[in-house]
Amino acid sequence: MLTVIQANSQAVPAADRGLAYGDGLFETIRMSGQKALLRQHHLRRMASDAARLGIPADVDDLDRELTRAARRLGPPDDNHSWILKLILTRGNGGRGYRPPQNPEPHLIASSATLPPLPGPEGVVARCSSFPLTVNPKLAGIKTLNRLQQVMASREFTGAEWELIMKDGADHLVEGTRTNLIARLGDCWVTPPASSVAVAGVMRQYVMERLVLAGETVLERPLPADLAAREDLRGFYLLNSVFGVVAVRSFEGADLPVDGTLATICGPIETLE
Amino acid sequence: MLTVIQANSQAVPAADRGLAYGDGLFETIRMSGQKALLRQHHLRRMASDAARLGIPADVDDLDRELTRAARRLGPPDDNHSWILKLILTRGNGGRGYRPPQNPEPHLIASSATLPPLPGPEGVVARCSSFPLTVNPKLAGIKTLNRLQQVMASREFTGAEWELIMKDGADHLVEGTRTNLIARLGDCWVTPPASSVAVAGVMRQYVMERLVLAGETVLERPLPADLAAREDLRGFYLLNSVFGVVAVRSFEGADLPVDGTLATICGPIETLE
Repeated sequence: MLTVIQANSQAVPAADRGLAYGDGLFETIRMSGQKALLRQHHLRRMASDAARLGIPADVDDLDRELTRAARRLGPPDDNHSWILKLILTRGNGGRGYRPPQNPEPHLIASSATLPPLPGPEGVVARCSSFPLTVNPKLAGIKTLNRLQQVMASREFTGAEWELIMKDGADHLVEGTRTNLIARLGDCWVTPPASSVAVAGVMRQYVMERLVLAGETVLERPLPADLAAREDLRGFYLLNSVFGVVAVRSFEGADLPVDGTLATICGPIETLE
Repeated sequence: MLTVIQANSQAVPAADRGLAYGDGLFETIRMSGQKALLRQHHLRRMASDAARLGIPADVDDLDRELTRAARRLGPPDDNHSWILKLILTRGNGGRGYRPPQNPEPHLIASSATLPPLPGPEGVVARCSSFPLTVNPKLAGIKTLNRLQQVMASREFTGAEWELIMKDGADHLVEGTRTNLIARLGDCWVTPPASSVAVAGVMRQYVMERLVLAGETVLERPLPADLAAREDLRGFYLLNSVFGVVAVRSFEGADLPVDGTLATICGPIETLE
């Protein structure tokens, strides 16, 4: 049973384990009126990651609360784009870190306006100096433990749209708020799900679309010297709010911008 | 300027970055009436770790608010022991992960009762199967990103007092809520500050006392087969609420319990 908290009008109990320990996860969902883009992808990810954390949240409960939140927070205009954020925490209680035996989760719903969207000409990205460390047992889960991304984001200067985080082996792992995919020769290469802090729903969607289109997708580490690779045909940032964002400049080097991926995926407004 | 929130009577704004991203840190302080044990250690750690995260919190502000919280939440009886928890977050605002330029931190104060304390005969510990991964740039900071400790704590069966977390190299790094120190031959060995998720104030205090007593303290990795080491003279868990806790059984093996460390450190009730 979920206790729902309306973040736009209500406060959160100070005893919430989401605040105390980051004991929970969240989804940031692009909305078009009452409609959630990539709805099933978001719900499936949320339910399966909650299960990994041992937070009891039925996909049907989440589905129902998503509909309610959309109705309550969304504009009547069907074409108006906005952001719905759902935070799921393990609720209150427990003895220190040790969770209660029967947690009563909180679902905290809030709305935000859509940020400016980059155009098809692409964006500027560079590497963050803040390293990314991923616990293998938490890999891919969009938990509330996001201090690494916060610290990396402090390096934004205004000149770049995204900062890419590297692991200890100097591989490109992900952006502060995006997953990565590169077109190298005839293959699409994205860092393995087991290596990323957040396995985004847009990453999942793009991989599905590429496979459906008969393309070859490899989950492999991306080298830091990507821009120097002669077979590089495109480098993209993936995020369920922004869709597919081409990188036109990385670490000061101009990159080829290819519309293939955007064509295969279709306009973000149409994603079911 | 700190905005103080009384967690026992007030709620926390849903927009607090502590909830959204674990963007903050905390201290759990053992109190005796209005007196905070290891007061200066806690205040210094809190201020220096806030600085590492870029959260503006002056040590004088923290000192004043600690006094106020103790007065407000503490019992009039000078000998009564209780726990004061202070959460410091970066406050509200910012664009996603990116913090606001001039954050207005929140300090969230709450009280709790003292848990049962283990006796000098020692406790039972074993290893957690949940690995510990520490970002080198966040090592030692008691941040609000504590999901690894929560997940490890789900393995408590009731048979053990503490679960010890190992890193990818199979070293013993720390307990879910304690730091480690072992007496090996004539040396005291504790995992390096650069390797631990939380560098506790009790760890700091114990190292200072050992050095003052002319003992040799080494910051070195602790091997997982510690119990099998012939030169093991004692294994201890350190925590500012519990003090020095001897381990009498680790991974099913009986360990020697030696009172030297407790003697050098003195009773926890007297720690300034």
